[in-house]
Amino acid sequence: MTDKRKIYFNGEFVDELDARVSIFDSALMFGDLVFEMTRSFKHEPFKLREHLERLYVGLKILEIDPLMTIDQMEDLTKQVVEMNLPTFKPGIDFQIMHSVSRGPLGPYHSLFPDGLKPTIYINCWPLYWHVGALSHLYDTGVNAIITSQRSVPAQYIDPKMKNRSRIYYQIANMQAHKFGDDAWALLTDDDGFITEGTGANFFIVKNGELITPEPRNILRGVTREAIINLAEKLGITCHEKNIEAYDVVASDEAFFSSTPFVMMPATKINGLTIGNGTVGNVTKLILKEFSKMVDVDIVDQAKKMRPLK
Amino acid sequence: MTDKRKIYFNGEFVDELDARVSIFDSALMFGDLVFEMTRSFKHEPFKLREHLERLYVGLKILEIDPLMTIDQMEDLTKQVVEMNLPTFKPGIDFQIMHSVSRGPLGPYHSLFPDGLKPTIYINCWPLYWHVGALSHLYDTGVNAIITSQRSVPAQYIDPKMKNRSRIYYQIANMQAHKFGDDAWALLTDDDGFITEGTGANFFIVKNGELITPEPRNILRGVTREAIINLAEKLGITCHEKNIEAYDVVASDEAFFSSTPFVMMPATKINGLTIGNGTVGNVTKLILKEFSKMVDVDIVDQAKKMRPLK
Amino acid sequence: MTDKRKIYFNGEFVDELDARVSIFDSALMFGDLVFEMTRSFKHEPFKLREHLERLYVGLKILEIDPLMTIDQMEDLTKQVVEMNLPTFKPGIDFQIMHSVSRGPLGPYHSLFPDGLKPTIYINCWPLYWHVGALSHLYDTGVNAIITSQRSVPAQYIDPKMKNRSRIYYQIANMQAHKFGDDAWALLTDDDGFITEGTGANFFIVKNGELITPEPRNILRGVTREAIINLAEKLGITCHEKNIEAYDVVASDEAFFSSTPFVMMPATKINGLTIGNGTVGNVTKLILKEFSKMVDVDIVDQAKKMRPLK
Amino acid sequence: MTDKRKIYFNGEFVDELDARVSIFDSALMFGDLVFEMTRSFKHEPFKLREHLERLYVGLKILEIDPLMTIDQMEDLTKQVVEMNLPTFKPGIDFQIMHSVSRGPLGPYHSLFPDGLKPTIYINCWPLYWHVGALSHLYDTGVNAIITSQRSVPAQYIDPKMKNRSRIYYQIANMQAHKFGDDAWALLTDDDGFITEGTGANFFIVKNGELITPEPRNILRGVTREAIINLAEKLGITCHEKNIEAYDVVASDEAFFSSTPFVMMPATKINGLTIGNGTVGNVTKLILKEFSKMVDVDIVDQAKKMRPLK
Amino acid sequence: MTDKRKIYFNGEFVDELDARVSIFDSALMFGDLVFEMTRSFKHEPFKLREHLERLYVGLKILEIDPLMTIDQMEDLTKQVVEMNLPTFKPGIDFQIMHSVSRGPLGPYHSLFPDGLKPTIYINCWPLYWHVGALSHLYDTGVNAIITSQRSVPAQYIDPKMKNRSRIYYQIANMQAHKFGDDAWALLTDDDGFITEGTGANFFIVKNGELITPEPRNILRGVTREAIINLAEKLGITCHEKNIEAYDVVASDEAFFSSTPFVMMPATKINGLTIGNGTVGNVTKLILKEFSKMVDVDIVDQAKKMRPLK
Amino acid sequence: MTDKRKIYFNGEFVDELDARVSIFDSALMFGDLVFEMTRSFKHEPFKLREHLERLYVGLKILEIDPLMTIDQMEDLTKQVVEMNLPTFKPGIDFQIMHSVSRGPLGPYHSLFPDGLKPTIYINCWPLYWHVGALSHLYDTGVNAIITSQRSVPAQYIDPKMKNRSRIYYQIANMQAHKFGDDAWALLTDDDGFITEGTGANFFIVKNGELITPEPRNILRGVTREAIINLAEKLGITCHEKNIEAYDVVASDEAFFSSTPFVMMPATKINGLTIGNGTVGNVTKLILKEFSKMVDVDIVDQAKKMRPLK
Repeated sequence: MTDKRKIYFNGEFVDELDARVSIFDSALMFGDLVFEMTRSFKHEPFKLREHLERLYVGLKILEIDPLMTIDQMEDLTKQVVEMNLPTFKPGIDFQIMHSVSRGPLGPYHSLFPDGLKPTIYINCWPLYWHVGALSHLYDTGVNAIITSQRSVPAQYIDPKMKNRSRIYYQIANMQAHKFGDDAWALLTDDDGFITEGTGANFFIVKNGELITPEPRNILRGVTREAIINLAEKLGITCHEKNIEAYDVVASDEAFFSSTPFVMMPATKINGLTIGNGTVGNVTKLILKEFSKMVDVDIVDQAKKMRPLK
Repeated sequence: MTDKRKIYFNGEFVDELDARVSIFDSALMFGDLVFEMTRSFKHEPFKLREHLERLYVGLKILEIDPLMTIDQMEDLTKQVVEMNLPTFKPGIDFQIMHSVSRGPLGPYHSLFPDGLKPTIYINCWPLYWHVGALSHLYDTGVNAIITSQRSVPAQYIDPKMKNRSRIYYQIANMQAHKFGDDAWALLTDDDGFITEGTGANFFIVKNGELITPEPRNILRGVTREAIINLAEKLGITCHEKNIEAYDVVASDEAFFSSTPFVMMPATKINGLTIGNGTVGNVTKLILKEFSKMVDVDIVDQAKKMRPLK
Repeated sequence: MTDKRKIYFNGEFVDELDARVSIFDSALMFGDLVFEMTRSFKHEPFKLREHLERLYVGLKILEIDPLMTIDQMEDLTKQVVEMNLPTFKPGIDFQIMHSVSRGPLGPYHSLFPDGLKPTIYINCWPLYWHVGALSHLYDTGVNAIITSQRSVPAQYIDPKMKNRSRIYYQIANMQAHKFGDDAWALLTDDDGFITEGTGANFFIVKNGELITPEPRNILRGVTREAIINLAEKLGITCHEKNIEAYDVVASDEAFFSSTPFVMMPATKINGLTIGNGTVGNVTKLILKEFSKMVDVDIVDQAKKMRPLK
Repeated sequence: MTDKRKIYFNGEFVDELDARVSIFDSALMFGDLVFEMTRSFKHEPFKLREHLERLYVGLKILEIDPLMTIDQMEDLTKQVVEMNLPTFKPGIDFQIMHSVSRGPLGPYHSLFPDGLKPTIYINCWPLYWHVGALSHLYDTGVNAIITSQRSVPAQYIDPKMKNRSRIYYQIANMQAHKFGDDAWALLTDDDGFITEGTGANFFIVKNGELITPEPRNILRGVTREAIINLAEKLGITCHEKNIEAYDVVASDEAFFSSTPFVMMPATKINGLTIGNGTVGNVTKLILKEFSKMVDVDIVDQAKKMRPLK
Repeated sequence: MTDKRKIYFNGEFVDELDARVSIFDSALMFGDLVFEMTRSFKHEPFKLREHLERLYVGLKILEIDPLMTIDQMEDLTKQVVEMNLPTFKPGIDFQIMHSVSRGPLGPYHSLFPDGLKPTIYINCWPLYWHVGALSHLYDTGVNAIITSQRSVPAQYIDPKMKNRSRIYYQIANMQAHKFGDDAWALLTDDDGFITEGTGANFFIVKNGELITPEPRNILRGVTREAIINLAEKLGITCHEKNIEAYDVVASDEAFFSSTPFVMMPATKINGLTIGNGTVGNVTKLILKEFSKMVDVDIVDQAKKMRPLK
Repeated sequence: MTDKRKIYFNGEFVDELDARVSIFDSALMFGDLVFEMTRSFKHEPFKLREHLERLYVGLKILEIDPLMTIDQMEDLTKQVVEMNLPTFKPGIDFQIMHSVSRGPLGPYHSLFPDGLKPTIYINCWPLYWHVGALSHLYDTGVNAIITSQRSVPAQYIDPKMKNRSRIYYQIANMQAHKFGDDAWALLTDDDGFITEGTGANFFIVKNGELITPEPRNILRGVTREAIINLAEKLGITCHEKNIEAYDVVASDEAFFSSTPFVMMPATKINGLTIGNGTVGNVTKLILKEFSKMVDVDIVDQAKKMRPLK
């Protein structure tokens, strides 16, 4: 069904492989691109507005005018989803990606006789691309590896602005993967404070309470926020504060959070078991309640994706 | 003549506007792209091998195998140049850009049935795109603005590896441009040491000697190296050492260096005159001798570019 | 009426222009001077005791013995106020400044045959000197500019000790003023955390809650404290925590606070609108309630100062 | 003879005790004052021009226009010296201090009907004020104490710009003096690198070579420069590089340098003997040769000052 | 009675002076040793389990397998206590020390034909060794000295893992002791935040509330935790947050906490009085309540130790 | 022959296994121990005096009086060597270790009725303990791994003072060993500058010149110094300057240096080949010339050690 998906690309709807960015675009010249990743539950985009609001903060900082209001962007997104809905299997959710760059750069303007405008694309793809391969890890948990590659501190490049100048994520991934297939990079800042995974937030559980890093050198994940709110409703306190490798070793449970997979248990840190080395009860509870909230059995759906791939 | 230029793109030669990168490419997902910019003198690429060697160090660090040797890359470059030579005006030189990314990412592999390979493109364009608009500044000099945006320290993202995760260059440019058209961003590190411009190195002249920042939080420019070597031949000592805003204010002359424009005088720092506020003698001398070395009057050629545009 | 104001200066009451500090004083040799700025409401000094307590902490740290108790200093202040009251217009408040330095330095002792004592002066002036020129900004708000000049971290010179070694305030002011008359400097620390203005604290409003930087690299303003307490009474939570430029851009409202003008809306950050770019409702509410608390319409009085000048 | 010295103060020549700065001056409000300290040898100012050039760099950075050229300042200085020469004893040299502030601040302009101009004063005093009390230390050396108060790094307040926002010098002095009368503060930066004394540079001698800190977080002393040049002539290599407490402990000799006393041996570091605990041979040699160069026996003159006082 | 105490040492019970570690042990080669210090109240170990849990976190991080479970370690401890109980005077408590190193290092294995195993010892000694000499300080308080030696930040060597690579404690002690017998070292981190004493935590009291540094660059003391919990029961809020020297100077009371002496008032900071310079009421209250909680008059017992010594 | 070696231990000569340090010693309580490691060539200690001088600098800093002069220490060393010479095989060299701690701590003084004295031991062992297992690596080179454990910066614990508070070496070793038997830890500082191995210095070769890190956050190895001097004699320039991972990747050759093995090629960095991945020519040359200088074929001797073990 792949060839049927359509991508909004600068005012048109194109085939997936035709969604390509000019090499003269600021996105490729400077990593000057902000984006969002939203997922659906039961084929409904989850917290789409929150994602778009974060996108528009990024655009404001970068002084990029997307030439459409946030409402227009939301409408357009719904149009993209609707157009692609027939390509998605029932019971399998999808991801939506919004991307906006400054567009082709000034020195190359003669190549673009219609003028220089921001590059905007919105596309969606089946969730099993990202989640399918991970589904067994819901049971075993991953091995969080603190890499020698550290987070870029926010005063240099602010990760709160979800941007694509993040080659260091890729380097951290390479470093972590040397420790095995279940190894995920866990970044720290210069002080040794845990920041985030490469595209995921991080939580520990200690004495029945959640702790997640201060929202500074991290992307402030929409799922992270949803988990904090959900925990509160469940009577589980969540602290946003600095934690270090020591705290993870001494914790009872730990997990990553991210839009596509929602929550992923971490049962090891640098190869050392966290708690008793199995997926913890608080982790399980929150994931179960999250599933209830969105009326989708998140793990179950993920496991169904494997044969699909 | 624009429509005649051809770009090497993943094994093919395509039209300029058809050189486009898939939105599923690591280049767009992570700014995971290394590149080089070479210029010609008299239509001969200048220090092409040095540029390619730096490219290959970057690829080694990123563990990207370009599937061709450096010799093959060099041959291919010559082929690209030859193919495009007819499009270049006599007396006007050109730039060559090499770009290599890891290619489309794993989760999207089903979209690429032929397998995931690095994305490689080599293209060239007339020098007046970048240099034409600047040519009058050879006479007046630019106003170097120390921006509140600082360099990303090398331990986070190494600028010595010429990569495209550099949205902070664009932010610095935006900050500098608020000070006028002749304002160029000058970055510093966390200690207030001058690092580089956004795509250029920086030198000051003090008591007849050159000083340029330590080759740490900078791209180690090929032109920078050429200037140091040339100065040596001219009996001008060049120190590589930490300098601060104070040193620039107290200097006699200053200039940026970069492949396209070679050298660009800076006659102000944060709006304060450097020396007597005109282009300095040492700067002029080196630029004149550089022109001799490459047998091209660099400034003169630049000025000829203006009407072309 | 200017020539009627009297200044307490080292045991005497002198005319304003005769209040001058010897060039051999530690104040001029080392910026070795602590001070306080108090304002009146309805001609009554506001929180005078709190100001004096802060002054005495500074004196303790600097090991300067002012040769009078805090009670004596308070009495003396009242005497200064009383003496000058006739010079102040009804309905226009005034400021009181306390200053204490170590006095003339040891090597110059032969010039001071009566011995070396601390230099102490207490003076007051009409509020319109500082506030008159700003009064229109209560309506439009100011443009907060994050300068490349950063705060001096507290481990080097502690801003909590209100001292006069702060040439960096003046440099930040110079940098900000290049962005226009409504541009106010906003300092950050080395991590990019907002600290303070140059003589003012800073607050943002987000989702109906106040956030103000941790009381570390800042002067802990008496007005800042008063606003936090007032907000609490109004049911508005105030968090003291690290905030960055990103948070200001993403905030709904922002304002500076300081003794003379109490609160000043910031409707822009680096030229980008904050919220919808007008003075926010929470800001207005707190300022209105502050006015009630002190029984002075702060903005109204400020506006009345303009013609006076 | 004291009452005969005259000070140039804002266009007039006044008595020493009448040289006083308005409390509304930027110097007292912000420590916004740059200055120079020059000494004479045989009643001739030593390297006056170098001092004035440094002063003018500071003024440029602070954007203060002194309303006179450097040549005019030099002439004026000579006039001040000449006027005061009769007050100086033969064989006892003197110091000259130049001070320039931005002048009274804008908000107080109504107090200064003639307009706001920079505050400028030039004065001189007999050398024994500063040097007399130290003269016995030429024989014993001082005890350099690394204080917990550190240097303010240059990116916050640049010590290369000789300014008066330096309350931290005074705090360091207080900390050092707790270790005895012969204890002098020795500052370090954040990395533990030695920077300077509080108004003096620092050198160590190791294996017959001089080492002095990189000219970054220090005032670049004119005497420091003179010593480096003199050493070179004597065939003694001098390295400008980072040194730490360890290097001082492991050194053979050490000394401070400054305009008034020229060189002062340090025979202890934190109470530990340096070398064999006596004034070293290289130190003695350089001091002797410096004396020759200026045709004044520096130590001898200093010792003669004691009874004068 | 000294010669009767027995020490568990690698499976045996030995005399105190025979408890010695091979010079080939990792403990002596790398400071590669974790330990715990527990005290008794009424001859019952206080919070032994908490101490052992912290020990086992350290062992996990160091990848040292102690070859016994935490339960076995607890049993063994009780055995050691029981064996030594006859040596302790009634009414005088004791300390227990647990120590575990990696054991002799690989290169020296031929010296240890029985194989390389961790080195483990458990010993106890009368409390008056450590506390006796301090007992008079409960009345006067100590003088907390901020040393130029700073804490090693946790990202280099984590103090939360109670280890023996802490020569910097000894250096800080040496620096503090130069200020007198009642001077105790108080460490700070690189930002000037108070961390801990050398083997003790630190609290201040301000406006009736307790404040103690964030549990980052400190050992997270078991007694610290007990005090926080006790304060809570007494209705005294305790904040864990960054404090600086300024906060201590401006505080009402201060004290150190540690296992052996429980609480020790600090009535001075760098020689400056804290509050009114006497032991504060909140300090007294908590210490009294702690005594009640453990049914031992802590100060009284300490004072009884003096003649014993 | 093992049982015949004797160790000088606090005034006595004892068997190897009897050289044990009391658990009450400052060495075990604080890692408060300085040491030296010297090796022999042809059974003659190499640069013994240099090692002892470094030892005595450390003792001075720690204010430990070893109660013997450096000459006495040297004589004693010779005595120890002589006594043990019969145990060493001809053609196989040995190592000498000097260790000095502050001795048992004050609180435990009653256990040491003879008083508290420094603990001093001098011992020697056959070189094959440390070098035998490594000898094959002279041919293949090691894989230098930049660990996430970084160097402790010198301002916290100075590595130039060769001390035993270095659990972080052991942690770095553990991290490196996960990458294989040929993986050696390579530490960096906070800026990402290479510092040293865990007990070894590091050099790279680039364009025929040697570069080794600035002697700051490293132990300044005696062998390092010897190599620099030797290179100079061979006409090979050696720069002491900051290098980063990038420089190692881009270098032609690299090697570690240390007393026991002298030089050890590093042919990989983080698994990436350095140069062409084999032992480089400059490395070979220097090692060969070093062998000549000491008249011992270093590699050959090392290889002979393998069967011995």
